[in-house]
Amino acid sequence: MPGRSQDKPAKPAAPFVLVIHGGAGVVTTELTPEREAAVRATLEQALRAGHAVLEKGGASLDAVIAAIKILEDSPLFNAGKGAVLTAEGTVEMDASVMDGATRKAGAVAGVKHVKNPIELARMVMEKTPHVLLAGEGAEVVAKQHGLPLMPPDYFITEPRRQQLKRVQEQEKSGKKKAQHETNAERTGTVGAVALDQHGNLAAGTSTGGMVNKKFGRVGDSPIIGAGNYADNRTCAVSGTGHGEFFIRSVVAYDIAALMEYKGLSLAAAADEVVMKKLKALGGSGGVIAVDGKGNIAMPFNSEGMYRGVIRADGRPTIAIRKE
Amino acid sequence: MPGRSQDKPAKPAAPFVLVIHGGAGVVTTELTPEREAAVRATLEQALRAGHAVLEKGGASLDAVIAAIKILEDSPLFNAGKGAVLTAEGTVEMDASVMDGATRKAGAVAGVKHVKNPIELARMVMEKTPHVLLAGEGAEVVAKQHGLPLMPPDYFITEPRRQQLKRVQEQEKSGKKKAQHETNAERTGTVGAVALDQHGNLAAGTSTGGMVNKKFGRVGDSPIIGAGNYADNRTCAVSGTGHGEFFIRSVVAYDIAALMEYKGLSLAAAADEVVMKKLKALGGSGGVIAVDGKGNIAMPFNSEGMYRGVIRADGRPTIAIRKE
Repeated sequence: MPGRSQDKPAKPAAPFVLVIHGGAGVVTTELTPEREAAVRATLEQALRAGHAVLEKGGASLDAVIAAIKILEDSPLFNAGKGAVLTAEGTVEMDASVMDGATRKAGAVAGVKHVKNPIELARMVMEKTPHVLLAGEGAEVVAKQHGLPLMPPDYFITEPRRQQLKRVQEQEKSGKKKAQHETNAERTGTVGAVALDQHGNLAAGTSTGGMVNKKFGRVGDSPIIGAGNYADNRTCAVSGTGHGEFFIRSVVAYDIAALMEYKGLSLAAAADEVVMKKLKALGGSGGVIAVDGKGNIAMPFNSEGMYRGVIRADGRPTIAIRKE
Repeated sequence: MPGRSQDKPAKPAAPFVLVIHGGAGVVTTELTPEREAAVRATLEQALRAGHAVLEKGGASLDAVIAAIKILEDSPLFNAGKGAVLTAEGTVEMDASVMDGATRKAGAVAGVKHVKNPIELARMVMEKTPHVLLAGEGAEVVAKQHGLPLMPPDYFITEPRRQQLKRVQEQEKSGKKKAQHETNAERTGTVGAVALDQHGNLAAGTSTGGMVNKKFGRVGDSPIIGAGNYADNRTCAVSGTGHGEFFIRSVVAYDIAALMEYKGLSLAAAADEVVMKKLKALGGSGGVIAVDGKGNIAMPFNSEGMYRGVIRADGRPTIAIRKE
């Protein structure tokens, strides 16, 4: 590996960093110590999976996908296995990736059988001339390229069945839900952003969407510019929150635009969009973001956001509540 | 009406303007005089329909929808009746609207039976808590609210059947298509933007997407920020072109961002995005745009773009080629 030979002076390693989120819909009052420990362990596992890629000089896109696959495979998050259920009791998952070096992007909406929707999003980017594929058509691409498919039962967990039942009973009784419950229903998306040793940024987002969703509702996660954006010249962003507001506010791209056009730092731009503009419109949620120098930002205007960071030193930092 | 009484001095009418497009995929060498006359007549009819709304003090959103409905109902454009056909020989239409006063938005993707997808996009905005609905779910909302549905035959025209056959034969024979044919296949979207007498902006976009499309491909037309955006503080934009590039470039919102963050005029911002940034990435197409003072821009980097403008004087201007 370059710079690692004992004959040459050690070249300082280029900085790299991976940031992940497991959703902004955390209801901290309902978070048992057992659940919190399980969530923290899985977030750490995801960080380590991405770190292993980056440490070897791998691409930020590979690190983002490695991390997100761990979160999709865990029943604890609203993506892949354990995704929330639609009004019909099925799963309909959305995901997207963007490569900051080429500004190529891929996304899928409403997939029902693909084990790792984030892999399919990448396949759309790399193997088709398209950016966004929806429904059964997206699954055809998964089959053509041999991506693992799963029966519906793989994705559906008992806690999600109970959650759907609870929400539908509340809806039927016309009882107004507490705000934190409403937020929790809308959120729980997972995502990752990374800067690799080559200076390339990437972003990925994956979700089951909203619990009890109807009418083929698509949120911000598969929408480039809203729930996902990456451009080496500015930043990589993944969002989680009330998707309709993220779409209307073009949240992810707006952070990049504030950096490029107004010269704001990543932290100032992310803060402006999430804590001021999005909030003013009435939208709850948060983002994770990284710029080309390895600066990171993780603002959220909701109660909590599952999130974690790992840098070259390999020491993961995980947080849930406001700090 | 205020200011119209003979007892008071006439109050100068607030400026208003409607701009429409019928797609950037014009192949001017294939445009017969008969077809050109028919296109011009329909664009004029659409402009007059929107003007009638604006003249009475109606809302920009109503004017945009009135104009787009004329284009959807005409077999000459790639939206509603006369939409291009998918690989299966069906129609799958996308549409979106955005209200610049509230920044509320509505969009639908992959609808097959709704006579006027632009009306359904508005219904999603006004009658549901969602922004984007896809496929059969979107049609459920159309049925719930009594929007006219049509059998597949209503949408499918003989020229579109022949076009699909031609494209599929070319694909089968592996023959490389001329660039202008490829562009024509990808484009033909319709759209409208307006400023009303109350100073409110609105944008609408409607399309049948790409001819011979597969895999549930969704283009930029239903993506807020990409093919559609409106905000009273900056501008209203509707795009037409190679949708994948419009999504990756977040074209419509980027024009607004350049105005808001860099202080560019509408014309300079639209030019920067369409003629420089989009072109540099390899994307062909154009936009129509209007700002809060009634300034307009209609840049396109393709061979031609069907377009038209009408202001308070009620005299329509229509153009197809570069000027």
